[in-house]
Amino acid sequence: MTETGNLRINAERLWNSLMEMARIGATARGGSARLALSDLDREGRDLFVRWCREAGCTVEIDRMGNIFARRPGRRPDLPAVATGSHLDTQPTGGKFDGVYGVLAGLEVIRTLNDADFATEAPLEVTVWTNEEGSRFAPAMVASGVFAGVFTEAYGHSRADLDGKTIGEELKRIGYLGELPVGGRPFKAFFEAHIEQGPILEAEGKTIGVVLGIQAMRWFEVTLSGRESHAGTTPMARRRDAMLGCGRMMERINRIALDHPPGVSTVGLVKVSPNSRNTIPGTVFFSVDLRHPFDEDLLKMKAALERALYETCQETGLAHECVEVWHSPAVRYHEDCIAAVRTAARAAGYGHMDIVSGAGHDAGYINRVAPAGMIFVPCADGISHNEVESATREDLAAGCNVLLHAMLARAT
Amino acid sequence: MTETGNLRINAERLWNSLMEMARIGATARGGSARLALSDLDREGRDLFVRWCREAGCTVEIDRMGNIFARRPGRRPDLPAVATGSHLDTQPTGGKFDGVYGVLAGLEVIRTLNDADFATEAPLEVTVWTNEEGSRFAPAMVASGVFAGVFTEAYGHSRADLDGKTIGEELKRIGYLGELPVGGRPFKAFFEAHIEQGPILEAEGKTIGVVLGIQAMRWFEVTLSGRESHAGTTPMARRRDAMLGCGRMMERINRIALDHPPGVSTVGLVKVSPNSRNTIPGTVFFSVDLRHPFDEDLLKMKAALERALYETCQETGLAHECVEVWHSPAVRYHEDCIAAVRTAARAAGYGHMDIVSGAGHDAGYINRVAPAGMIFVPCADGISHNEVESATREDLAAGCNVLLHAMLARAT
Repeated sequence: MTETGNLRINAERLWNSLMEMARIGATARGGSARLALSDLDREGRDLFVRWCREAGCTVEIDRMGNIFARRPGRRPDLPAVATGSHLDTQPTGGKFDGVYGVLAGLEVIRTLNDADFATEAPLEVTVWTNEEGSRFAPAMVASGVFAGVFTEAYGHSRADLDGKTIGEELKRIGYLGELPVGGRPFKAFFEAHIEQGPILEAEGKTIGVVLGIQAMRWFEVTLSGRESHAGTTPMARRRDAMLGCGRMMERINRIALDHPPGVSTVGLVKVSPNSRNTIPGTVFFSVDLRHPFDEDLLKMKAALERALYETCQETGLAHECVEVWHSPAVRYHEDCIAAVRTAARAAGYGHMDIVSGAGHDAGYINRVAPAGMIFVPCADGISHNEVESATREDLAAGCNVLLHAMLARAT
Repeated sequence: MTETGNLRINAERLWNSLMEMARIGATARGGSARLALSDLDREGRDLFVRWCREAGCTVEIDRMGNIFARRPGRRPDLPAVATGSHLDTQPTGGKFDGVYGVLAGLEVIRTLNDADFATEAPLEVTVWTNEEGSRFAPAMVASGVFAGVFTEAYGHSRADLDGKTIGEELKRIGYLGELPVGGRPFKAFFEAHIEQGPILEAEGKTIGVVLGIQAMRWFEVTLSGRESHAGTTPMARRRDAMLGCGRMMERINRIALDHPPGVSTVGLVKVSPNSRNTIPGTVFFSVDLRHPFDEDLLKMKAALERALYETCQETGLAHECVEVWHSPAVRYHEDCIAAVRTAARAAGYGHMDIVSGAGHDAGYINRVAPAGMIFVPCADGISHNEVESATREDLAAGCNVLLHAMLARAT
C-alpha cells in the first residue's frame, strides 16, 4: 500500500474519455441517448472495447452481452477484483449515469499501466447490458441473469415495444458472446456512480460510502367509480375516481413522511375516459415505496392498504392494488464498504455513509460476490435528464477512491 | 284547447321510430354511433327527411345543414312554433340523446295529422347539425351560427382530427343547403330531451320543467414542479406536481360543496413525464365549474384561484390557470316554461322545475326566439354511453307535454 498510496488517476484523461463517449448519441441539450442494444449502444461498446484492448486488456463477452475487460495479475489463480457499470442510457439521459462507472474502471487500468504496477489478483472492468430498462424491461436484467436472479432464456426473451428481443438485438449488433452468463468468480466488485440524488451536494461531501440499496416495492392501483356527465350529476351522487386519486396522493405522501427516511412516489397516472366533461370512472396509478429497511417498507405497504381502504370507504369507489415488483434491501459487503471508506479517508476526501435510493447492477452482483459502491455528487441531484452534471474534480475523486479500494482488495 | 285536451301521441309509434333510427350506426352494446356529417349521420338524416315528407311536411336545409320540416298552419303569416334537437351522437352514444327531441317533434306532427287537426301557426321540426361536438369542436356549433353566436364562415371551417371541415363534409353528404343560416322567426321553440342526470328518477318525477341551463366555465391548469428520481430524492426536497394535483382535487371538490348546487369536475389529467420512478414535474388538468347562477359561478372561480395559490404556496409549485370557455347562465322564456308546466299538470304527470346541467341547442335558440325545454328521466342518470336508457312511458309523457305546449303556443 505504501508504494501506491500516492498514486492518482489522470483526471483530464477520465474527463476526456467521458466527453468522447458522450458524443455517441449526443442530444441537443447536452445529454446522451444510447438505448440498450441500439446501433449507438454498439458504437459505445466498440469504443470501450477498443480502448480496453489498447490498454492491454483481453475482452470477453457473455451470452447476455456483458463485457469483461481483464488486466492480468501476478497470480492468475486468484479471482478478479472487478468494477463496472453500464453504457446504455435513458432516452434523454445524461453523460454520467452508468458511463462514469465503466470509464472510471478503464481509468484505473490506464493509471496502473502508466505506473507499471502489477496487482496480485487480475482486475476486470465490466459493462452490464440494459441496466436502464428503458428499452427492455426489467432494468438491470443482464446483471440479474449473471447473479442467477433471472434465467438466460428470460433475459433473451425480453422484448422492446417493436417486439424485438434482447437475444435478437444482441446478435444483430454483434454482442451475443459465447461465455456462459454467471459463474465467473469476483474477489470483489465495486461500482462507481453519480449519486443521482441531492444528499452529497447538500452535505458538502465528495464521496458517498454506499452501505446498500434501499428496499423497494412497486404497486399498481386501480380506483373504480362511475363515469357520468360533469354537468348533470349532482355532487352527492358522484363516484369520482379522480377525487379518490387526489386523496390517495395526500395519503401516499403522508406514508413516507410517517416512515422516515422512506420515500413514496406516484409517477404514472392514467385517467379514464380522460374527457373534460365526464367524471372519471377509472384512475390507474403506480406507487413506488422505498425504505432502507425491509421491515419499515412492510409497514409502509400496510399503510398503503389502509389508505386505499379508507379512501374507498369515503368515496364509494372500488379498488384493486397489485404488487408488481419487490426488491429487498441490499446491504453491501462489509469488506467492500470498509475498502471504500478507507480509501476516501486516506485520500482526504470529505465522505459520508449513504444508502442508494436507486437500484444498481452492484446490488445483484452482491448476491454472488462481495460488492460495494462509491457515489460522487451530481449537480442539484438531477439524473435521468440531459442536464445531468458532475464536476471533473468529484469524478476524479471517486475514481481515485475506486483505484485504492480495488488495490486494497487486489493485493 | 278543449277540443285537443285529450289528444295523446302514439307511444308505440314514437318508440318504434326511435328504435328504427337507432339501427343506423348501432353499436355492440346497444347504443348508436352517428358522428356528425358521417355517412351514418347522412343515413339518419335521410330517414328523418323521408318520414317528414311522408307526414306531409316541406323540408328545407340551411347552409349549416340544419333541417327544417314544416307542417303548414291556417295562418302562413305567423312564425312557426318549432321543436327539435339533433341526430348526431357521441362515438359510443345512446339511442335517445338528441334523437328523442327530433322524433318527438315528428310524432307531434303525425299525431296532429291523425287527428286531422290544423294549428293556427305553422309547426316545424328542426335538426341541428353537430350538437355533440365529438367530431367537430365546439359543440352546438350550428344552432350557435343560427343564433348569431358564431359566423357561418367559422362554422364551415371547423375541422375534425383528419382535417376535414364541416363545410366540406356538409357538401360531401349532400346537406349543404341553400337557406341562409338564421333570421328564421320562431313564435316559440321547444326541445324535448332526456335529462342526462339522475334528478327526475331520484325524485320520482316524469317531467322536468326546464328553467334554464346552468352557467359554465372551463379552465386549463398547469402545475409545475421539478422532475426528479423517485428513489433518490428525499421527501423534503421534492416539488411534486402530482401531490399538488392531489390537493387541488380535494379543494376543487370542496368548491362545489361550498356553493350548492354547483358542480366541479376534473375530467382530463395529463402527467409528465408519466414514468413510474420519476417524480412528476408537470401536471395539466381541466376544471369544469358550473352553477345555475352567474354570480355564484364567479365566486367558484375566485375560490379556484385561491385554492391554486394556497396549494402552490404549500408545495413549492408554480401554476398557470387559463379560462378557456365561459357560457353564461341561460334562463328560458317565461311563456315557454309556463306552457310546459301547464301541459304537464293538465296531463297529470308528476313534474318538477329543473335546471339543465348540460348545454343544449335550445340554449342558443333562446337568444333569438322564446325557448323552453322538457326533460324526461333516463335510467340511473346515465348518458353519453351506449347503455343510456329511457322508458317508453316516460318518452311518451314528454312527447305529450311537447304536443300540448306547442299547441298552446300555436293556437
